[in-house]
Amino acid sequence: MNDETQTRTALLGSSSDAATRVFTTILTRSPISRIDVARITGLSQAAVTKAVTPLVAAGLVNDTLDAKPTGLPGRPVSPVAVVPDAVVALGVKVNIDELVGVATDLTTRIITSDRLPLTSHDPVAVADAIVEMCDRLKGELGGLQPRLASVGVSVSGDVDTETGVVRDSAQMGWRGVELGAALRERLGLRVVVDNDVRALTIGEHWFGVGLGTNSFAIVTIGRGIGSGLHLNGEVVEGAYGVAGEIGHLPLTSPDRICACGRRGCVEAVAATNAIVAAISAAHGRDVSIEEAVDLARAGDAAAIDAFGEAGAVIGRAIASLVNMVGPELVIIGGEGVANFDLFEERLRRAYGEHVFASADRCRIAVRPHTFEDWARGAAATAIRSLVV
Amino acid sequence: MNDETQTRTALLGSSSDAATRVFTTILTRSPISRIDVARITGLSQAAVTKAVTPLVAAGLVNDTLDAKPTGLPGRPVSPVAVVPDAVVALGVKVNIDELVGVATDLTTRIITSDRLPLTSHDPVAVADAIVEMCDRLKGELGGLQPRLASVGVSVSGDVDTETGVVRDSAQMGWRGVELGAALRERLGLRVVVDNDVRALTIGEHWFGVGLGTNSFAIVTIGRGIGSGLHLNGEVVEGAYGVAGEIGHLPLTSPDRICACGRRGCVEAVAATNAIVAAISAAHGRDVSIEEAVDLARAGDAAAIDAFGEAGAVIGRAIASLVNMVGPELVIIGGEGVANFDLFEERLRRAYGEHVFASADRCRIAVRPHTFEDWARGAAATAIRSLVV
Ligand SMILES: [Zn+2]
Ligand SMILES: [Zn+2]
Repeated sequence: MNDETQTRTALLGSSSDAATRVFTTILTRSPISRIDVARITGLSQAAVTKAVTPLVAAGLVNDTLDAKPTGLPGRPVSPVAVVPDAVVALGVKVNIDELVGVATDLTTRIITSDRLPLTSHDPVAVADAIVEMCDRLKGELGGLQPRLASVGVSVSGDVDTETGVVRDSAQMGWRGVELGAALRERLGLRVVVDNDVRALTIGEHWFGVGLGTNSFAIVTIGRGIGSGLHLNGEVVEGAYGVAGEIGHLPLTSPDRICACGRRGCVEAVAATNAIVAAISAAHGRDVSIEEAVDLARAGDAAAIDAFGEAGAVIGRAIASLVNMVGPELVIIGGEGVANFDLFEERLRRAYGEHVFASADRCRIAVRPHTFEDWARGAAATAIRSLVV
Repeated sequence: MNDETQTRTALLGSSSDAATRVFTTILTRSPISRIDVARITGLSQAAVTKAVTPLVAAGLVNDTLDAKPTGLPGRPVSPVAVVPDAVVALGVKVNIDELVGVATDLTTRIITSDRLPLTSHDPVAVADAIVEMCDRLKGELGGLQPRLASVGVSVSGDVDTETGVVRDSAQMGWRGVELGAALRERLGLRVVVDNDVRALTIGEHWFGVGLGTNSFAIVTIGRGIGSGLHLNGEVVEGAYGVAGEIGHLPLTSPDRICACGRRGCVEAVAATNAIVAAISAAHGRDVSIEEAVDLARAGDAAAIDAFGEAGAVIGRAIASLVNMVGPELVIIGGEGVANFDLFEERLRRAYGEHVFASADRCRIAVRPHTFEDWARGAAATAIRSLVV
């Protein structure tokens, strides 16, 4: 990070609440007129101008765009816009078997991306791999390298974003891993560690579907079942860092024991491992997820049942989420959507049976997020950390 | 409503977002210095002063309080405060068997209260009774009567606040009742109709426990099981008017059929009627809720079981709510808390078994709201409608 970048990030970090709102409004809606910034933030035009001036001086915002003639007499509307490559961020998604990393500009446009297999879940080895990933991405930045300001890392599980501690990740087998502190020291950069689904939701909130809706939820299916909630213009973080844990709602029989140790969790039936275990038990041998999918597609009754039962409990979980928080839209993502046809019928039926009253107007959409989308979410948390 | 009151309510309704934030900050934290208003709203002191001036001119805010010496050199801090009786609101809670009404000032302090039995659930008869209740309350206002600006009515069920239509109230047997329009015409006042638990949450948010916490939920137990959510500084309304419906989460066996027609709902086991039905079935005769409570207290196994099973499913519902949105605090209220001892042990055990990771730091508090508290919630929605 060079002096210029340091000035920029210091400016964003020290801003007043009003300046933050002005910058995030410009960031997510560029180009935008000062009048519209005032309308959206509820600030006076004078206050907007006051907030914009240092952002322009620092090179974060451009106010020399061509003024758009309004067709009305009087002054033309003069738009302001974010300077996308004023600051660069890295995002790394930690998967069970590999890291996926991206370098993005301020608007989470991907500049470069990379992947790195993970051979061990030992926290030191994973931190080493993340550092290597960051070095590789930096190496691809060329002239933008001095503008690198922050790194976001996202991991499945219960993460304390404030301290960067992964309190509990069943997928990685981690408890109380101080990942943020370790990476901060080795990278010499601001590092944000967040839950992976929440990071994806932050990315969608700022730069994706969140721009068009007041409230939405992302539900991910696959190895884990999770969700991220965006309500009243904010991502729901949970007072103690836990929110959106629909994978552990007790929506199925108490004889089904979850990997988390609790009884009757959604994941105990609907996580990939649970589906595979049910099909393996029916066939008296270990089948892989790929084989399980093939069996179901070939008409194997046990396999069809296992995916169907998973779909039903996911449908109940989504209905529970919708009854509880009433979003406009639920986006189903996660690696499980690659086989969504095997879940869909019973998922939609169970959802329809349990969604309450007019909450059923909530739209359900399926969106196959790529691994890069997940890493972009991690980069979005890094950018957000500069601003709020 | 006299001209002065009309000016005041028009001023509040037409305010910019900044003015609204200034007024709600003064409303909920009076007396407060302009500096603190600026800090909390993120506005400049100049913007705060600009917003305060018309509020003072309209008599809604007082800026002539004694300046408090700060102990520091320079100007003393000059506080501003809301003028509580500048505007009066009425709140009416519709119960299954009676109306409870209050007249309150701007801070929901109760000026007078009243009750009126309901002999019919016919929407016209209920509207008649609400008008009679409002007339009675108005009659008690004396010199404050011309300051009456709005009426809030709260009802159990799915209510479209925007249109004042009760879309579905199982308790009242209503579907698509245009209560707001009927009352507006007959009262000649602004009328807000809201779900009762959401109204209680709005009251707690503005004038109760919400002032001390960033996020909380109210869970009500009794005839119905419901919840109100307050997250990121806002009440969760639901995009389509439905939120907090924990009474219809599918957390129990599908053989239990709910009054709403769905299978496995929380209310199918834990609503007062369901508890009473289980105890009646065990004893082969109809028992009342009072007798059911007496039986359980006297050690009757079937009665203890029925309350215990209800407690367990309520505990699972609260754990689901906490896993989903992660509040700081859950307040258990509703008429069922009068017998909370019969629910408590299994409720807390089930909650503990299903709450996820650090979400278990969420505090659970029991608070016996009075009927007047519920009516105050309705008055809070009326006051809020003037401002936001
Ligand atoms: Zn679990
Ligand atoms: Zn139900």
